[in-house]
Amino acid sequence: MLRPSRSWFLGPMAENEGLLSELLIAAVKSHAEWRRSFRPEDPGLLPPCQTELQRDHAAAADLRREFGSLLKALHGSVPVFSARYNGHMLSEQTIASQAAYIATMLYNPNNVSAEVAPVTTRVEAEVTAQLADMIGFDSSRCWGHLTSGGTIANFEALWIARNILYHPVAALLAARTLGVDVSVELLDGARAPLGDLDLWQLLNLRPSSSLNLWEKLWLAAPGPDVEKALNSHSLATLGYQDYSRQLGAQFGDELPAGVVLAAGTSHYSWAKIVAALGIGSNQLVVVPVDIHCRMDPDALWREIESLSWDRIPIMACVSTCGTTEEGAVDDLQRILDVRARAEAELGVTFHIHSDACYGGYAASLTRAPDGSRHTAAAVREECGGTSWPTDQWVRSVSALENADSVSIDPHKLGYVPYPAGAFLLKDRRGRELVATDPPYLAVAASVNDEQPVMGRFIFEGSKPGAAAAAVWLSHRTIPLTTAGHGRLIAATLRGARDLHALLGSSDFSPFSVVRLPEPDLNIVCFLLHHPALETLAELNALNEYIYGELSPAAEKPPPYIITRTRLTSPAYDTVLQSLLSDLRGGGGSYVDSSGQGITVLRATVMNPFSDVDNAGYLLGLSDAVRRVAVGFLSYRSVNVDSDPGSLLFSAAST
Amino acid sequence: MLRPSRSWFLGPMAENEGLLSELLIAAVKSHAEWRRSFRPEDPGLLPPCQTELQRDHAAAADLRREFGSLLKALHGSVPVFSARYNGHMLSEQTIASQAAYIATMLYNPNNVSAEVAPVTTRVEAEVTAQLADMIGFDSSRCWGHLTSGGTIANFEALWIARNILYHPVAALLAARTLGVDVSVELLDGARAPLGDLDLWQLLNLRPSSSLNLWEKLWLAAPGPDVEKALNSHSLATLGYQDYSRQLGAQFGDELPAGVVLAAGTSHYSWAKIVAALGIGSNQLVVVPVDIHCRMDPDALWREIESLSWDRIPIMACVSTCGTTEEGAVDDLQRILDVRARAEAELGVTFHIHSDACYGGYAASLTRAPDGSRHTAAAVREECGGTSWPTDQWVRSVSALENADSVSIDPHKLGYVPYPAGAFLLKDRRGRELVATDPPYLAVAASVNDEQPVMGRFIFEGSKPGAAAAAVWLSHRTIPLTTAGHGRLIAATLRGARDLHALLGSSDFSPFSVVRLPEPDLNIVCFLLHHPALETLAELNALNEYIYGELSPAAEKPPPYIITRTRLTSPAYDTVLQSLLSDLRGGGGSYVDSSGQGITVLRATVMNPFSDVDNAGYLLGLSDAVRRVAVGFLSYRSVNVDSDPGSLLFSAAST
Repeated sequence: MLRPSRSWFLGPMAENEGLLSELLIAAVKSHAEWRRSFRPEDPGLLPPCQTELQRDHAAAADLRREFGSLLKALHGSVPVFSARYNGHMLSEQTIASQAAYIATMLYNPNNVSAEVAPVTTRVEAEVTAQLADMIGFDSSRCWGHLTSGGTIANFEALWIARNILYHPVAALLAARTLGVDVSVELLDGARAPLGDLDLWQLLNLRPSSSLNLWEKLWLAAPGPDVEKALNSHSLATLGYQDYSRQLGAQFGDELPAGVVLAAGTSHYSWAKIVAALGIGSNQLVVVPVDIHCRMDPDALWREIESLSWDRIPIMACVSTCGTTEEGAVDDLQRILDVRARAEAELGVTFHIHSDACYGGYAASLTRAPDGSRHTAAAVREECGGTSWPTDQWVRSVSALENADSVSIDPHKLGYVPYPAGAFLLKDRRGRELVATDPPYLAVAASVNDEQPVMGRFIFEGSKPGAAAAAVWLSHRTIPLTTAGHGRLIAATLRGARDLHALLGSSDFSPFSVVRLPEPDLNIVCFLLHHPALETLAELNALNEYIYGELSPAAEKPPPYIITRTRLTSPAYDTVLQSLLSDLRGGGGSYVDSSGQGITVLRATVMNPFSDVDNAGYLLGLSDAVRRVAVGFLSYRSVNVDSDPGSLLFSAAST
Repeated sequence: MLRPSRSWFLGPMAENEGLLSELLIAAVKSHAEWRRSFRPEDPGLLPPCQTELQRDHAAAADLRREFGSLLKALHGSVPVFSARYNGHMLSEQTIASQAAYIATMLYNPNNVSAEVAPVTTRVEAEVTAQLADMIGFDSSRCWGHLTSGGTIANFEALWIARNILYHPVAALLAARTLGVDVSVELLDGARAPLGDLDLWQLLNLRPSSSLNLWEKLWLAAPGPDVEKALNSHSLATLGYQDYSRQLGAQFGDELPAGVVLAAGTSHYSWAKIVAALGIGSNQLVVVPVDIHCRMDPDALWREIESLSWDRIPIMACVSTCGTTEEGAVDDLQRILDVRARAEAELGVTFHIHSDACYGGYAASLTRAPDGSRHTAAAVREECGGTSWPTDQWVRSVSALENADSVSIDPHKLGYVPYPAGAFLLKDRRGRELVATDPPYLAVAASVNDEQPVMGRFIFEGSKPGAAAAAVWLSHRTIPLTTAGHGRLIAATLRGARDLHALLGSSDFSPFSVVRLPEPDLNIVCFLLHHPALETLAELNALNEYIYGELSPAAEKPPPYIITRTRLTSPAYDTVLQSLLSDLRGGGGSYVDSSGQGITVLRATVMNPFSDVDNAGYLLGLSDAVRRVAVGFLSYRSVNVDSDPGSLLFSAAST
């Protein structure tokens, strides 16, 4: 069983301050030398006159003073480096990423284009290949890039998926305009002339068939005519309103609005994304989850069946690898199997996106140092020879290679600074369906063929090359295998499982603990209850109170920091039923009549050193929870007046 | 006339290396002390055993080696710090922003929420207030935040504008459902019951009236019922397809698709944005520009008139303050006047967004050190007592205060590192129309009332608090007045005007120079021509060649770096006509029959020290251009075969 190296991070007592300082000084020195050696014959800044000198000194003094006050203010930050912090998904950053970010930021490259960032656009391409290799995408056929974060990566996935879904309609109408015959591969493998397909069939072609059509049209009638013909029928050009009218006019049927399937546990950004893209949040179809907070494949099948009866097109199914609330990893292989069944039995297909923003780095645990896949048994051995991770876990994470697109945030479990999200698309041709030409940058594409202008294909424009360098150096020195990141993942998963076990075995009397099942990743959710708390509102008030006392905003500095989340109906129905049943087993008669849901405490165990000296911290955390809970009882006896239920409820629902 | 302080930047010969190093060392020390003093009683990392020690040393050695190779590779970066670089909008960064970014990045705060970034979310609120004060928004009524860049800021502007436009429809239908009467202010100031308005009137209410409706509904029927009623009729919930059907069903008329008005010079991100939002690029209506590349207000009026005849709703008009190709500043006040006239004469109104991503910082030149507005005469005095900037320029920049929303990129003319864009909304209530609740962060809103969870209202999620600190410290030490950023703006504008003048007076024989008019900001566009080059294709080949030789990708390191852009029809028709006429005056008989447009060379003069020792650099640049052009003539005589025209054309059009 391998452990993270002590020299990967600054350390809880800044043990590696010397190393970090050394690298930063080297970076400034190297950068300054570069400036001086660029054109040594050029004049530097002229010696200032007396007045200017005074002004310059005053300006420097100003800067020192204001900077000093910033440094002081920063001491009010949240101590995410400490094992005492188990709140959100923040932690230490690798020294490699810190040093590379800072060194590169001095040059301030803009990765929108190689013309302004010749070094870091190459670095970004390498980062994409590193991530592709980790999850199992063929880096010669896929495409990827870094984003400001997971929201934009997810946004691009759906933006592209939508354009791929609707592309065959534009292709058919363009082919007619151009007088060109093209054939298309159907779901059963047979080929048919494109013109023979009805609207429903057009909207149920595999992503690769849709993109083959695009390629065929370009080959059949090269030149600006194809572009024009495709554009004049595409959703991107027409917009939803005219596109719907086109469907009505051409096919006599607009079909219902297209939908996106996602589990109730999917990230809240999906609601923003479907609203912004004009898809509409009504079209975000919530698929129920099982007791492990994973998308229920049987429920998914039923949903698809019902949508197909109503002839509702499906743009994409979003599967999550690492829910941000519970660290659940969907059984992606079973979701892929459901799609295969839908293709065979219903003639229905769709893009599958894995939102692996949080959990994507878990795939590093399935990679041997030579890059090959570990067997599940080998993964378990790396994790300490336990019965965990299960075969199903390894299969779920390995299945990322079969998704159509994947988003992964290096700034979450990759332990690098913000901003660093990543988007990976399995079939790189899809990017052409969202391409734009930035006039003042298009040049570089011709000058520098191997590094096309990023800005053509991505939603964002300017973006820091420093972020790419940070991720790159981190991956170079801490590889995406069990020799590197696999160790970090193993450490944080072990830490979470230890906490989960401890919460199950500790004495919280007079309270009892109810836990969610063992997490797939490193987030532990649980709640405390007490026989005197008879309603769900009171129970929630207790756990809100515990959270409040153990949050960074607490009145006195808390000994440990955790956070909490609220599980509500219908997204969490299966989980709620199970929790309510556990709670009733403990004596209460809890029902969620008002739809308020259940507050659970939530601990994200990010500490990369959780395999060293962890027992003390875990005991400290559970003890802190218990002591705060006891405090609630006195708080309650002082604060509860004639109508305790309503008071507590109002405290809980703010 | 004030000049930028020498201590604001590292300097072309890294003159301030000592200051930067001093600040970075202080930052690491301060951070390390914070870690050590957080819980001094906690154990640090245990002393490693022998095997681990060896492994840790090997890991540190790995890091040093790989970091060294990164530092070396970075020397291949583009020298944006040098006065020899006049390519894209990249330059020096202020030392304040570098030091603050780095110091804060060590803490890695995530400004999605105060719960994980108590210090830097406050800092971000201050940055917003600084920018609001500069442009003249009332910081107690407006709202703003930082983004990863201009694209996202512009995206949010249109996302919100669309929701404000369509909100009255949802409000009317919600009011019916709730059985509530509300009145609304019409364009002429009269009030009417909401139910009396027809669809066209509903889609032509002022943004403030639309938001008043939202507020009134909440007051008339507080609670979840309003939310439900509004949601069930809103575009965000229904999506475009069902929303259009709703319009048809409720009003017997879906109306044509809503449009966005933008000049041909607007940033290419707008094309991405309308495509992604589902608006459709067909609905991006291009308003012609005048010879200065500014949106033509008369053409805008004609466009609005024609749209109103066709009953096409207008979502927004995008005016640009600082086009990225030519540095043109729209006459925003005249655009506002056109809207006022449209309201009075046509009963038509719309949201006005100023895309001031590039030029927004120019407003600092209109602010006296006490924050009051300078008169145009005072602005001219600050700029050196010349006849420039004109009254019209000052009025255009001051008019930002009357836009409904403004985007400004600190990472462009704010001289701070990527990523730092900003979005400002004049009436903060608009953010509620795009709000979402992130379940696991909603907590902080109640705990920490004065700092609502950013993630509820912004499109992105996680984002670096370090970026906020960088902008903040830069603004603190280099204020957004003529005491600070105004000096930088003045310096860069003077540099560009000097270059423009020099290009007009220099001897380029055997070539002649044609220039675009004096720029409103710091971008100079020009092209060379020669009597022997008879077609536009040949002319473009010349200027593409010059660009190629003076670009970072040139085979041998170029003595100066510039870039180029292509002006095409119809977006640039007025400009093209003028250029073609100037060129024909020089002897050729150029026509743009194939629609290829004209390549112009483009120099962005960002150097903050352009007021010191500038003449030599400018002469060097114009000399370099001339010498490369002469090289083209020999290149041409060697390379041109039997069909020179087509060869040159194919070279130019790649």
